[in-house]
Amino acid sequence: MEPLCLAESVSRQYNFAAGPGVMPAEVLAQAQQEFLDWDGNGFSMLEIPFTGDAFKNTLCQAREELRGLLNIPDDYRILFMHGGASAQFSLVPLNLLGNSRLADYVETGYWSSKNMREARRYCEVNIAASSAHGGYDHMPDHWRLGRESAYCHITSNETANGVQFHPLPDITDIPLIVDMTSDFLSRPLDVSRYGLIYAGAQKNIGPAGLTIVIVRDDLLGRAHPATPSVFNYQVQAEANSMLNTPATFAVYLAGLVFRWIAAQGGVMAMEYNSIRRSSRVYRAVDESGDFYRCPVLPEYRSRMNVCFTLADDALTPRFLSDAAAQGLLHLKGHPMTGGIRASLYNAMPDAGVATLVDFMQHFAKAHRRHV
Amino acid sequence: MEPLCLAESVSRQYNFAAGPGVMPAEVLAQAQQEFLDWDGNGFSMLEIPFTGDAFKNTLCQAREELRGLLNIPDDYRILFMHGGASAQFSLVPLNLLGNSRLADYVETGYWSSKNMREARRYCEVNIAASSAHGGYDHMPDHWRLGRESAYCHITSNETANGVQFHPLPDITDIPLIVDMTSDFLSRPLDVSRYGLIYAGAQKNIGPAGLTIVIVRDDLLGRAHPATPSVFNYQVQAEANSMLNTPATFAVYLAGLVFRWIAAQGGVMAMEYNSIRRSSRVYRAVDESGDFYRCPVLPEYRSRMNVCFTLADDALTPRFLSDAAAQGLLHLKGHPMTGGIRASLYNAMPDAGVATLVDFMQHFAKAHRRHV
Repeated sequence: MEPLCLAESVSRQYNFAAGPGVMPAEVLAQAQQEFLDWDGNGFSMLEIPFTGDAFKNTLCQAREELRGLLNIPDDYRILFMHGGASAQFSLVPLNLLGNSRLADYVETGYWSSKNMREARRYCEVNIAASSAHGGYDHMPDHWRLGRESAYCHITSNETANGVQFHPLPDITDIPLIVDMTSDFLSRPLDVSRYGLIYAGAQKNIGPAGLTIVIVRDDLLGRAHPATPSVFNYQVQAEANSMLNTPATFAVYLAGLVFRWIAAQGGVMAMEYNSIRRSSRVYRAVDESGDFYRCPVLPEYRSRMNVCFTLADDALTPRFLSDAAAQGLLHLKGHPMTGGIRASLYNAMPDAGVATLVDFMQHFAKAHRRHV
Repeated sequence: MEPLCLAESVSRQYNFAAGPGVMPAEVLAQAQQEFLDWDGNGFSMLEIPFTGDAFKNTLCQAREELRGLLNIPDDYRILFMHGGASAQFSLVPLNLLGNSRLADYVETGYWSSKNMREARRYCEVNIAASSAHGGYDHMPDHWRLGRESAYCHITSNETANGVQFHPLPDITDIPLIVDMTSDFLSRPLDVSRYGLIYAGAQKNIGPAGLTIVIVRDDLLGRAHPATPSVFNYQVQAEANSMLNTPATFAVYLAGLVFRWIAAQGGVMAMEYNSIRRSSRVYRAVDESGDFYRCPVLPEYRSRMNVCFTLADDALTPRFLSDAAAQGLLHLKGHPMTGGIRASLYNAMPDAGVATLVDFMQHFAKAHRRHV
């Protein structure tokens, strides 16, 4: 059987990878255009010394652009850190436990579980809530916070399981810490409700290796003595994220992406886009007559990572190869969960979603009789 | 007085920054050319998922290219890590102290001193040797290693002070750990003489944020329990540097630079170039009739960072501004030492050095009467 062909030829490729994922075409075009001579400096941004005004201004502008996008209050510091979000799995307890030996974690899928395993190396973990019993098909409502916990940690969106908090939860007793790696900048946010937010850049910002940390002033100064200085929030806050050489090119690209988001209408526009795009894919799943199945309860479905399975899992490899032949790439689900995952980050074009939905409908029609 | 003009007009600019510094023009041109569509994948290297074969092959090729460049023995692991060399100031003691509470450090300038301050947070530091009494004008010969030390740490080249080990020292009692950030890949190296070598990438490799760690197998498995997993050498060695998302674009660029070095003739050619280029600048200093002065004893002068002062320090700002007008940029010395610093990393073109020497001679001639 030949690979399925759509009526209209598709020449463009779309990147549904969970991360590093799609970046805004306009940002990439600008970065390419000024790759050899940035801002008339005569050198590539890769070659600009970080101690000079040119880079310092770049970092400062990126930070203030981000502050504007999310209305980040003045008593929060914005840090550009090395190491990816997984480094924060250790750095959050190292920096925030203080004298406490207990922290609350909400278990909602693959990434929060991994996070908890790392945290147990530093403290006792109280599972404040868990959706493990439902196979991570929802976000848990009823939390039991520890009385002595230094903080409560949640993962706002689980990329492997396709579940997301809508809206983000609210607690007042202890600082709420959020791993927002995979839905950062995809919706408005009342930053003042959180103690600390962190996000690896390789989803909605772009360059892997950079991590954004937004931390409330009063949580600084609690770091364990074994915390490496470059990963100490207070030390980096005092050094304006330049205690050591930052990932300069990544900071520059992040600034371009922040400006692109602002030009698109800001995080309100990103939220509108993500609802519209993800709804189209979920509808294609729900209206497939059980050809496709989404295990996640509707009110908890992720707008960033649409995860679904084929009723006949034997067709999954064929789905993936036919999709790739149509320019729909990196749709394979996370190894832990299998199936299909369509990551719809901010930079995903509407046309990518339209092509995917079209393909899903044609594929189901062509293969339904084989189920 | 008008800025000094050379007889021949200089249109090209040269980047003498200590880091991030100059990168090979051919590498930048290739990266720009394939910036939007890497290797026919249809996406930028920035967008390639790190779990797919495309990136895994990129990382593997970069690692093997580096292994070839330095003839790295099979019992050494090559890690691509996050965080810059300053992170290693903490990660070396966290990973290597084991049950020991003592480590030897050789104090040779600004960076080794900074390194020792960080190490003191993890263990007792035995200063095995120091050149502080000579104002860091040489590398110390006579070392007194601690009997119980877990390792001895040196900084092979001090960027702020312009001193460098020629050749690298040899010890056999305990593992020798080398911060080789600023002269990595600038000369051949017998890796088997060292326990661990690390280098932040933003000097002779390029992209800031990436750090190369070369570690002997028998030193793995000693990490302190508080070491974050993503910064645990053994864990990253077992995960092929992909426990979490690596700095993918930086790894790709590093691979391009490694291939560029090989194409230039390898590290032997880099050493030849660095001797030739640095000798020209030092000669211009020594033959200036004391207009320029290099405080470093000749046999310890750095081939990477040529540091000198003007006898009349009041002329330094004028030197810097006139040099910049000639396209000779980022020549300002480290804030701790002042004066002038010309960083001559592998990618510095000979023409940059020729233009600098020409400028130095003209500047001295024009201003000698004012001294």
